[in-house]
Amino acid sequence: MVTATQMTRFLPYLKPNEEIGILETAAIKELDRDQVVLEQSEKLQAIFLIEHGAVRVERSEGDQIVPLARLEAGEFFGEMSFIDGAPTSARVVADAPTRLLIVEASKVNELISKDPSFAGRLYRSIASILAVRLRLTSMQLDTLAEEIDSYSQARAEIEAAAARLPD
Amino acid sequence: MVTATQMTRFLPYLKPNEEIGILETAAIKELDRDQVVLEQSEKLQAIFLIEHGAVRVERSEGDQIVPLARLEAGEFFGEMSFIDGAPTSARVVADAPTRLLIVEASKVNELISKDPSFAGRLYRSIASILAVRLRLTSMQLDTLAEEIDSYSQARAEIEAAAARLPD
Repeated sequence: MVTATQMTRFLPYLKPNEEIGILETAAIKELDRDQVVLEQSEKLQAIFLIEHGAVRVERSEGDQIVPLARLEAGEFFGEMSFIDGAPTSARVVADAPTRLLIVEASKVNELISKDPSFAGRLYRSIASILAVRLRLTSMQLDTLAEEIDSYSQARAEIEAAAARLPD
Repeated sequence: MVTATQMTRFLPYLKPNEEIGILETAAIKELDRDQVVLEQSEKLQAIFLIEHGAVRVERSEGDQIVPLARLEAGEFFGEMSFIDGAPTSARVVADAPTRLLIVEASKVNELISKDPSFAGRLYRSIASILAVRLRLTSMQLDTLAEEIDSYSQARAEIEAAAARLPD
């Protein structure tokens, strides 16, 4: 049973009864740990909400798997492809026994056709979550850039020191 | 005079006449190079579109100015505060003689009250641009993380070499 309190975490600008409505259209998917939810470069339009469990987001580069993020209950993914139809940019794998609610674009479009103002609240909700992620990612970027600065500085000092060593 | 071709760069899910409509409500602001557009931590709700020129986005940390981004004609800023009302997270300064179109939230709300379905197309447009930025930022993050990996590895090699040096 999904309660309003649980749901307000997902889509903040929807009215509580709209959150109930959209989640009632969702398909439920139960996954074991390490089961793949989405492959990289999949073409699909759905929002995946994590009800229980967690997923890891990773990108395969050559034969390497680069971990990108870990998302937990209350978070969602797939929303970027949902918005602009671009293929998924990463692979998503269950990182624990996980229960997902999957809201298909076709179901969302049905809700929008019944109430055109619903779309504004839905996309504003998604935009607000993207904005929060973008702020976080920018902060991480700042931190890494500073770290690289200090490494570059250390390297310059090492090179200067090496130049003073006797042959 | 603003043409439909110029405007389709800004808000991709609006209909062309809606783009014209929203830009007609915009205030125009002309800035000289180095003139401040927005201070960090300002409370405001407006979307700033760059019609001509460019701005630099920067954050002050202590007495340092950390450059974050440079935005050019066709790009916009302020949209994150516009969506969720959070204070601006960075300072924006004109980086060239610049002409901005400033769309206030109050004007947007008037357009939404006339046509509730307009909100969906507007917020979807903003969400799609945030999604593109988030993909770019994530890629930059990957690149920096790899660079740090290679620095850490170099450091480990240097330390191992240093340990073999005679005292």
